[in-house]
Amino acid sequence: MATLEDVLSTIDANQNGALDRLFALLAIPSVSAVPAHAPDCARAADWLTRELVELGFEAARHDTAGRPMVVGAAKAKTRDAPSVLFYGHYDVQPADPLELWTTPPFEPRLADGPRGPRIVARGACDDKGQLMTFLEACRAFRANGGLPCNVTVLLEGEEETGSVSLPAFLAANAKALKADLALVCDTEMWDAETPAITTMLRGLAYEQVTIAAANRDLHSGVYGGAAINPIRVLARILADLQDADGAVALPGFYDGVEELPEEVAEQWRRLDFDEEAFLGDVGLKVPAGEKGRSTLEMIWSRPTCDVNGIYGGYEGEGAKTVLPAKATAKVSFRLVGKQNPERVVQSFRAFVKARLPADVAAEFVSFSANPAIALSARSEAVRRASRALEAEWGRPAALIGSGGSIPVVGAFKRELGMDSLLVGFGLADDAIHSPNEKYERASFHRGARSWARVLAALAA
Amino acid sequence: MATLEDVLSTIDANQNGALDRLFALLAIPSVSAVPAHAPDCARAADWLTRELVELGFEAARHDTAGRPMVVGAAKAKTRDAPSVLFYGHYDVQPADPLELWTTPPFEPRLADGPRGPRIVARGACDDKGQLMTFLEACRAFRANGGLPCNVTVLLEGEEETGSVSLPAFLAANAKALKADLALVCDTEMWDAETPAITTMLRGLAYEQVTIAAANRDLHSGVYGGAAINPIRVLARILADLQDADGAVALPGFYDGVEELPEEVAEQWRRLDFDEEAFLGDVGLKVPAGEKGRSTLEMIWSRPTCDVNGIYGGYEGEGAKTVLPAKATAKVSFRLVGKQNPERVVQSFRAFVKARLPADVAAEFVSFSANPAIALSARSEAVRRASRALEAEWGRPAALIGSGGSIPVVGAFKRELGMDSLLVGFGLADDAIHSPNEKYERASFHRGARSWARVLAALAA
Repeated sequence: MATLEDVLSTIDANQNGALDRLFALLAIPSVSAVPAHAPDCARAADWLTRELVELGFEAARHDTAGRPMVVGAAKAKTRDAPSVLFYGHYDVQPADPLELWTTPPFEPRLADGPRGPRIVARGACDDKGQLMTFLEACRAFRANGGLPCNVTVLLEGEEETGSVSLPAFLAANAKALKADLALVCDTEMWDAETPAITTMLRGLAYEQVTIAAANRDLHSGVYGGAAINPIRVLARILADLQDADGAVALPGFYDGVEELPEEVAEQWRRLDFDEEAFLGDVGLKVPAGEKGRSTLEMIWSRPTCDVNGIYGGYEGEGAKTVLPAKATAKVSFRLVGKQNPERVVQSFRAFVKARLPADVAAEFVSFSANPAIALSARSEAVRRASRALEAEWGRPAALIGSGGSIPVVGAFKRELGMDSLLVGFGLADDAIHSPNEKYERASFHRGARSWARVLAALAA
Repeated sequence: MATLEDVLSTIDANQNGALDRLFALLAIPSVSAVPAHAPDCARAADWLTRELVELGFEAARHDTAGRPMVVGAAKAKTRDAPSVLFYGHYDVQPADPLELWTTPPFEPRLADGPRGPRIVARGACDDKGQLMTFLEACRAFRANGGLPCNVTVLLEGEEETGSVSLPAFLAANAKALKADLALVCDTEMWDAETPAITTMLRGLAYEQVTIAAANRDLHSGVYGGAAINPIRVLARILADLQDADGAVALPGFYDGVEELPEEVAEQWRRLDFDEEAFLGDVGLKVPAGEKGRSTLEMIWSRPTCDVNGIYGGYEGEGAKTVLPAKATAKVSFRLVGKQNPERVVQSFRAFVKARLPADVAAEFVSFSANPAIALSARSEAVRRASRALEAEWGRPAALIGSGGSIPVVGAFKRELGMDSLLVGFGLADDAIHSPNEKYERASFHRGARSWARVLAALAA
């Protein structure tokens, strides 16, 4: 009978084929935020469905009001094996600004990097590269007698736009999807040598607000001084959202935010986080969040408010003396602890409305309202996965927080009563959501090996 | 010998030909702000040069570092006639947002309007329609024995981008261009029945500021809370630019701003300005400028600060959790009285720099720095032009202010020591700088008749 070592050897032997498969998936511009790319999302879903069928899964594409879901199921080679639900997403962030990419974002390539070869493409890490590590592990098990766990795979296409269709899909397919544990591969390692399990995730409330004033754009010479300027109104609102100490000024915003338990705080201090390098990598020096908080708190355990986009009036080259009719901002809040996303949204909308002068209206669009989530560091799954990761990487896995939200983890808990084990092989410099996104070839290869070890450990 | 009545009859008889000529000019997308349209600006300049030659002018196109100038000169039919320099501009504002135009902006057409037929196109009023009223008057004089004044025509192509090349061109061609009086046709009537002479013009300081933080766009989940957000910094600066009473908060900004002389204030009260209709036309009700000032003061005799454009981060559909590296605003100040534009620019830049937190830099681009200008209401030229306009329209001409700046008027004074008579036939609802810009056919026709009368009156 095949051993885990045989499975790992198969992964090692199949590296080139694995890369070809990943490149084929990366070449599909499955951008979920842009409606024109909906057919590409469908193509990516079809590609993955075929891939799962080839791996012996019973698999199908399931259309939704948004982008399709892909679901596949395969039995373990033994009875009484545990069941897992693996989750990943095939949709990617928009690639703009295109001019900052060295090569086209949907023409994947290998490039040299300081740690060896890297895979460069939109989605190389987030999340196509990551999800393929799991499928490659499944492929190696199939070549060696079968899977150690009952595995269901769920791949969605709306993660980058708030996973709008997911909760209803989970509820409608609860029986097929419910497992002993969810495995989610959309997170990072602690550093290039140290694997990590993410046990704290921030939630996300994401709102778009448009300030509308005059019924058309005006000439700033003719109307300037007398007509209200919506950019000025918007600027005042955005400026008021934070106080001088960097705290969010929405009434009730910090309800449900708790101080870090001392045991966790102590573990984080031991992580020996290099704050200077973290910010220095992106050209910054001074942590910009709440005064008196460490950088790790700012990004893992404290809530935030960020403006993700703003536009209004003339954006072209040169000068245009226009007084615009509208101005828009995209505003998001990262949430922690027991903060209630709906209440944050309501507080934000009330805050905006309270600051509208005469003649001005505010229009809102809601893109996301998901709470934060935490996994117990003491669970059996975390212990087994930690040991498996240590065996692969030669170092204990760090138990960390994550500033980004992964809405599916909340949905799994809410809709299916299921905990999630978050393991991923991204690195801080992977430039996800930015031009020239990459994934280390080592992350891709050893990620597949890690999943083989984790699946074996969960079944042991 | 031909009389003024003969000239006016010729204008009346030639209306269709005049419209064809204007449409040919309007079909050229001579947008000065967009470098890709530079060849179109050159085409418009060539078209106008040919037109002037056809009208008996000695004319040529003069290339500059920016868009070309067109200059033509024609002698009066009699000796000892006064000399005038007519100024207009053939460049137009960008037409975006294109989707708000009912028909393409550079396919001119006649449409029905509440006051009769209107000419719809980008530049229909500002300034192609206006400048063609003068050329059509010259055409009618040529058909009736010649011009009553020595006329030089100067048409520039950078008015909408700050007239950058103009001062040096005036200085280099002072001998050819200096006249007894400049005639500038880039202003409005008081209303559709009442002609106007604009005797006060606001100046303009126009700056672009870019706030730069991280060296690349970041994921707001990974960095949010710790990395400084440049939109937030920019919003704070823009919000601080005005105080709670609507006054501009730049130190020294109001230096050189004087209270309106009582005689002018009294004349403005007699104008019986309909504040409600002025704002109501564009969907507003409450004047948004400095507390305690009338709307006419806000738009004519008080300085302002407006944000004409803002952009940064994600502007597409849906949500993107980006924390942008940069954010940019275009900020302009309308200036009055003796405000010094250079000092306003310096004060603005210092104001921005004083509000930059750690890790953030500000980059500036200057598009304009022109002072306000006033013409004496008691001059001989104003008196003669008033009578001529009253003869055409049957009502006394209103002597008004203008909120928009016309940099050439300051340049004429500074470089050539020459006063400007500002007469134009635009209306407040012409939507200049906005989608569906129009010019009343009556403005075009009676504008040409008005110039014939003004030229005759100046020579009388």
